[in-house]
Amino acid sequence: MNLVDLNCDLGESFGAYKIGLDEDILEFVTSANIACGFHAGDPGVMRKTVEMAAEKGVQIGAHPGLPDLAGFGRRNMAITPDEAYDLVVYQIGALSGFLKAEGVKMQHVKPHGALYNMAAKSRELSDAIAHAVYKTDPDLILFGLAGSELVLAGERAGLKTAHEVFADRTYQEDGTLTSRLQDDALIQDDDEAVAQVIRMVKEGKVRSLQGTDVGLKADTICIHGDGAHALQFAQKIRRELKFSDINVQAFST
Amino acid sequence: MNLVDLNCDLGESFGAYKIGLDEDILEFVTSANIACGFHAGDPGVMRKTVEMAAEKGVQIGAHPGLPDLAGFGRRNMAITPDEAYDLVVYQIGALSGFLKAEGVKMQHVKPHGALYNMAAKSRELSDAIAHAVYKTDPDLILFGLAGSELVLAGERAGLKTAHEVFADRTYQEDGTLTSRLQDDALIQDDDEAVAQVIRMVKEGKVRSLQGTDVGLKADTICIHGDGAHALQFAQKIRRELKFSDINVQAFST
Amino acid sequence: MNLVDLNCDLGESFGAYKIGLDEDILEFVTSANIACGFHAGDPGVMRKTVEMAAEKGVQIGAHPGLPDLAGFGRRNMAITPDEAYDLVVYQIGALSGFLKAEGVKMQHVKPHGALYNMAAKSRELSDAIAHAVYKTDPDLILFGLAGSELVLAGERAGLKTAHEVFADRTYQEDGTLTSRLQDDALIQDDDEAVAQVIRMVKEGKVRSLQGTDVGLKADTICIHGDGAHALQFAQKIRRELKFSDINVQAFST
Amino acid sequence: MNLVDLNCDLGESFGAYKIGLDEDILEFVTSANIACGFHAGDPGVMRKTVEMAAEKGVQIGAHPGLPDLAGFGRRNMAITPDEAYDLVVYQIGALSGFLKAEGVKMQHVKPHGALYNMAAKSRELSDAIAHAVYKTDPDLILFGLAGSELVLAGERAGLKTAHEVFADRTYQEDGTLTSRLQDDALIQDDDEAVAQVIRMVKEGKVRSLQGTDVGLKADTICIHGDGAHALQFAQKIRRELKFSDINVQAFST
Repeated sequence: MNLVDLNCDLGESFGAYKIGLDEDILEFVTSANIACGFHAGDPGVMRKTVEMAAEKGVQIGAHPGLPDLAGFGRRNMAITPDEAYDLVVYQIGALSGFLKAEGVKMQHVKPHGALYNMAAKSRELSDAIAHAVYKTDPDLILFGLAGSELVLAGERAGLKTAHEVFADRTYQEDGTLTSRLQDDALIQDDDEAVAQVIRMVKEGKVRSLQGTDVGLKADTICIHGDGAHALQFAQKIRRELKFSDINVQAFST
Repeated sequence: MNLVDLNCDLGESFGAYKIGLDEDILEFVTSANIACGFHAGDPGVMRKTVEMAAEKGVQIGAHPGLPDLAGFGRRNMAITPDEAYDLVVYQIGALSGFLKAEGVKMQHVKPHGALYNMAAKSRELSDAIAHAVYKTDPDLILFGLAGSELVLAGERAGLKTAHEVFADRTYQEDGTLTSRLQDDALIQDDDEAVAQVIRMVKEGKVRSLQGTDVGLKADTICIHGDGAHALQFAQKIRRELKFSDINVQAFST
Repeated sequence: MNLVDLNCDLGESFGAYKIGLDEDILEFVTSANIACGFHAGDPGVMRKTVEMAAEKGVQIGAHPGLPDLAGFGRRNMAITPDEAYDLVVYQIGALSGFLKAEGVKMQHVKPHGALYNMAAKSRELSDAIAHAVYKTDPDLILFGLAGSELVLAGERAGLKTAHEVFADRTYQEDGTLTSRLQDDALIQDDDEAVAQVIRMVKEGKVRSLQGTDVGLKADTICIHGDGAHALQFAQKIRRELKFSDINVQAFST
Repeated sequence: MNLVDLNCDLGESFGAYKIGLDEDILEFVTSANIACGFHAGDPGVMRKTVEMAAEKGVQIGAHPGLPDLAGFGRRNMAITPDEAYDLVVYQIGALSGFLKAEGVKMQHVKPHGALYNMAAKSRELSDAIAHAVYKTDPDLILFGLAGSELVLAGERAGLKTAHEVFADRTYQEDGTLTSRLQDDALIQDDDEAVAQVIRMVKEGKVRSLQGTDVGLKADTICIHGDGAHALQFAQKIRRELKFSDINVQAFST
């Protein structure tokens, strides 16, 4: 039987600002990536999100981002590998405080936004991130774009890794995601998104925008936690995965 | 033989901004309170300060502050106990990441500036802080103003605590520090400061500005780490404590 | 005929975070208080809000707040009068850039949240704020809580001032607003809120929670711009003011 | 007789953090670029720096930077032209508040650090910045790297511009500065730096690291305001320019 993890970015509210349907989406996912205060999230939001995830039995990961709240961590910044190392250690640590207070163990780390995308292509940055994760806790699983530098760096560092795929994003023939700056970056049709996911999990393949099949590993699927549509899609993908005999479960269970 | 710990606030630089003679002062103190990024410090500064302290065998503590970099955490803010809890857990966690990466154990937590001062007088705030420390790691020692609400809260929470005294600050007859807004808040004469410290450690007493003797416990002495004069005073106090048969050592050795 | 201005806090979104129904509420108010980036708002939000207000002919004011994005500027901070002066000059200036770019004139300044509330009771802080407004542009109108220190300071500084009243807040017998920490701070019933407003404008009186009538001046009424209910209430109050022969218009028209 | 302006980045302190010998360096320069709170500076620092510059008759310019205090605005960030426009308008505006309060007129705008460097090579970003300056105040002079896209964009926008050269930086054969990441980016020898400046002003040429002469215009020379050496060099360059019959004066006098 096939196995896959279902993850979502959560805890992205900040102070008076609310984003995401965290409580609801936690019913559907098996791993939660919790923002750590640099691109989103604040200490209060982190505590509440950890409590909710722990209560629902969802595995928790740190979701460290660039120090760019105004840009939601989505703008590339020319940070050095040392700076990447430092901000990853800091953010994993910060979230770990709430996990210890709650008595639960952190499962994974998944860099956010521009940090994730820059790492996917940069061996240097990925090595720094993987090193930061390993030094902070060698049992953590590093989530990275399937087949990317980040996953390779995790393996080099001696970490368990998870190849991540995206339900509603289109792929290029080199296995990278189509840039959000392009019109066809997103899959609008839910059935298509679900079919893509199931094929990635079962066959280890995705059809690129160029029409070629690209091989990839799908250990964990990322779905969205905000937007009116998010819950409906989460529900649908859970149901369809079940119909396709794909078991959804976290890595640490 | 008398024992006392000597502590100093360190790691207060931020980005391009440098404060403090961290490397030098680490030669003289036994406990280092490291800023955690809210009122001062940044991830890179934290890593380097942890590395330096670990190398010199100085015990490390978290020095969490209010989220007020512009005010260096010295301006009172009307935060709720829940907010105090959250920002203490966050900051202890963040620093702990660097300690884990370095393979050393955190000894203590000492709130910074306005958070320290507000807690000294507020049972509610102190309970929140003590609770945060305990939940994150019950082995941590909570540093608070000698005889203050913060130390009492630490005891209620089941934590080991350390009563802190200040070498160069004058005291009021109720055992509180004279406000920095007053002219006579600081002891300018080094010999006087040293004599005050030795009496606090040996006799458990300090002469208040009002002329009365106030009883207090002196588990740890705070000295400054910046200013041209800081190193000279650190050296002097170490020497004078030795002459007075007071052994300087950290709590975790 | 009676005249009154109707104002609303706007431009409170930040980066990816959205708050408020700015575009819709601008149809109903005559003065817009635009956040300036310290407690809320960012440069892009400020530009867009200025453009929208200018297009709809709504008068624009700066809404400077404390440097506390995480607390939305609602937490009291022990800032000095000099710090208050500086942050008010800075924020008025920052917003004025967008007004100059758009070719419109700023009408007023209304401090936000904790800065507004602290100023209401502090002559020193109010004098610093009024001085900041006057020095930046002596033609600006200073909005303050009706009868408060802030309005008095504005008069002393030589500024035009506007006494502000709140549609949905209850009053104490000394003319201050009931603290939001109390249960009866808000008027839940729309008809009651409207009746209170009309009486304040026509009779210059409000019934306090203690049951006594308090005299106050009502130059401008503050209504809310977020929440599902906001637009409905804005519409209702415009209609009811018209029925009561109260003309709604800004100070600069 | 030759004319040149001498400028320096000032007002880069922040809260408790001090950088630069602002008061002293103001004796030697004719134009001051004042940080506006994004990469450095805070409202209090801005006020004091404006007051000092005005008192000494030094012309004042805004020095807007990227929103990256932790990186001192030196890390490239992938901001859009719209974002560049917005943050330049905001920062010019913010500084202009203090100028209005002081009753002095702003002379120029010079982007800082990574914003300056990115603009030097990007027509799109430069057009956005020039547009922001023009819309805020068409009388402002735009400072940009000599011969760069930023100066060209200023001209297209209808602004007066100033070609800026650097006393202690080496040049590449395409007229750009040698990257600070390279060892030979800085001219260590003062006499060499002075000779380079005098040749740039008198002959409009600089010898590149590749050994070729590069033509450039030198309207304003940038010198440093921090480091033990800064004052000595400032003094020396003033004296040597005078000996070479080059008059040092600002654009608005």
